[in-house]
Amino acid sequence: MTFRIIAAGKTSHQYAKTGIAEYVKRLKRYGKFELIHVKDGDSASVSKRLLEAAKGSVLVTMDERGQEFTSTAFANKMQGWTDDPSVKSVSFLIGASDGHTEELRKQSHLLLRLSKMTMMHELALLVLLEQIYRGQTILRGEPYHR
Amino acid sequence: MTFRIIAAGKTSHQYAKTGIAEYVKRLKRYGKFELIHVKDGDSASVSKRLLEAAKGSVLVTMDERGQEFTSTAFANKMQGWTDDPSVKSVSFLIGASDGHTEELRKQSHLLLRLSKMTMMHELALLVLLEQIYRGQTILRGEPYHR
Repeated sequence: MTFRIIAAGKTSHQYAKTGIAEYVKRLKRYGKFELIHVKDGDSASVSKRLLEAAKGSVLVTMDERGQEFTSTAFANKMQGWTDDPSVKSVSFLIGASDGHTEELRKQSHLLLRLSKMTMMHELALLVLLEQIYRGQTILRGEPYHR
Repeated sequence: MTFRIIAAGKTSHQYAKTGIAEYVKRLKRYGKFELIHVKDGDSASVSKRLLEAAKGSVLVTMDERGQEFTSTAFANKMQGWTDDPSVKSVSFLIGASDGHTEELRKQSHLLLRLSKMTMMHELALLVLLEQIYRGQTILRGEPYHR
């Protein structure tokens, strides 16, 4: 089982770079977690690149129209995919600031909203990674390592 | 008008330190924004310290049972306080991981939830600061500076 986090655009803020690297490193202990960047651009081209990079995966797309979960419910979602033999990989998609195409939305298995507030792209990626990490500790019954 | 962000405990993660410093610096351009740390501890003592540090302020408390806002609605909330001559300061409170006392909840003017997900304390502070910054740019009609 592979978890892929696919984000449009490079990370430019130093704090985001450092934080993202920290959680990616932590996640490596728990299995196959890959962070992939695709080229940024307009909504149409980014959505297309995200779909290509995520081919064959369960698609979990960060979207302001998506559903919110508690950390525990989100952890259970991850467990469900891990337990499903038909799922080879899950891809978490973070797109361009001008949103996703209808095509990407339709193909997504889950639209996930991290917050009702609009967060800067790189900060949203950081929050998502921390939630995936938190979810893994919840599923293992481990104390959360701050 | 003074905006105070009052958080329990020191920031230990390098990425959070860097990010928090970045948004505090940006906010200085927009008026009086102060970040204050109070000593960490159990729920009762932290809530007490937060209340003391925020005396005389409108109290906006980060709380998992709180209300969620869009970034624009949150910006309008800030504008409302700024326009109210009876409001001298607004204090945003981020408490201990084991929550707030009922006393602090009752005294709060607003319970604010950043996300349904539980975020690490320092990350929540970073998200809050980014929202205050975003709110200020929204109110001034400025383009968001990534």
